[in-house]
Amino acid sequence: MWPDHLEAGLRRRNEDTRLRILSTAERRFAQRGYDATGVAELCRSAGVSKGAFYHHFASKHDLFLELLDSWLAALDSAFAAAVEQADDVPTALRGMADLVAEGIRRPEQRLGMFVEFWAHAQRDPAIWRRAAEPYRRYLAYFERLIAKGIEQRRFRQIAPERAASLLTSMALGLLMQASFAPDDEAWSDTLRGTVEMFLEGLEDVRR
Amino acid sequence: MWPDHLEAGLRRRNEDTRLRILSTAERRFAQRGYDATGVAELCRSAGVSKGAFYHHFASKHDLFLELLDSWLAALDSAFAAAVEQADDVPTALRGMADLVAEGIRRPEQRLGMFVEFWAHAQRDPAIWRRAAEPYRRYLAYFERLIAKGIEQRRFRQIAPERAASLLTSMALGLLMQASFAPDDEAWSDTLRGTVEMFLEGLEDVRR
Repeated sequence: MWPDHLEAGLRRRNEDTRLRILSTAERRFAQRGYDATGVAELCRSAGVSKGAFYHHFASKHDLFLELLDSWLAALDSAFAAAVEQADDVPTALRGMADLVAEGIRRPEQRLGMFVEFWAHAQRDPAIWRRAAEPYRRYLAYFERLIAKGIEQRRFRQIAPERAASLLTSMALGLLMQASFAPDDEAWSDTLRGTVEMFLEGLEDVRR
Repeated sequence: MWPDHLEAGLRRRNEDTRLRILSTAERRFAQRGYDATGVAELCRSAGVSKGAFYHHFASKHDLFLELLDSWLAALDSAFAAAVEQADDVPTALRGMADLVAEGIRRPEQRLGMFVEFWAHAQRDPAIWRRAAEPYRRYLAYFERLIAKGIEQRRFRQIAPERAASLLTSMALGLLMQASFAPDDEAWSDTLRGTVEMFLEGLEDVRR
């Protein structure tokens, strides 16, 4: 048995190690690709032993899925906050766009990871299932948001399903394009301008 | 010197080999990923010698860029035909959507390649330049199409740049989602429905 304060210290160090491995992996996968990055290299980059690595993750594949989960969890809570703070659906969607614009300050990392996930989902059934489930969930979530916007008379009488598909496509497409923007500011402008265009198209002109 | 008919036969066989390598690579890259697919494996799958491979392509990287070029050339000519056959811009855009829906009958190949290109463009400057150039070209092309649609009074007085950004984002996002559709028909419906939603948003209500 360890004294309490020592055990807490150990837990904290353990958690530090885990997070260091995760953030190193995120960076390396984005820079070099998942296939080209080995566990030995990840351990070297993160400054941890192989023993420590396998204490936290069953495999590189397992680590990859954890990154996906933590990415989605961050997105979920950011979106929930944007909806909570907004008086109506267009404002909520603008808030989400701002959050994404803010969150993507280092496109070489997060976005690289995002495209890596997608490439792997195409050929790895386990990653496919993990990616397809949140994809369907977001689609349904956006559909409910659009329906609420129609109820609020902010949007015209459109089919929520189709509008949700356009919104989801736009969001995915914007993420993919981020790396082609000359800088963060240009990208934020494009993102916000595109979302405005989308909202204009849905607007209830009777207002 | 070879007699003419023998030389023509050789040229044809050479071209057959080249195309066989290209289509094998497209399939293997999509199934297993670019990094995980070696030249030896490609030669085995395509039934060609390493000598034949390097007669046609300087490297795996070079082959990858040729695939990108041939993919874009096919898209370019398909889009040009859709525009030529249409009386107005909305009809042209619907024609493009039909072409993409038709062309993507084997999503496990073409789409896998598309996402692979994107993943590699994030980290390989040579691929990035090759992908960024057509991306900018399409963006400008869509902007001109939208401006023409406004001229034709099919679209309201929108900013062509923003509408082009929405259109490009939607198109990229739709391509990325193809693998999540349960089947080709469901995917075609989603594609067409989403494009209709986009067009509705741009419509000139004065008509």
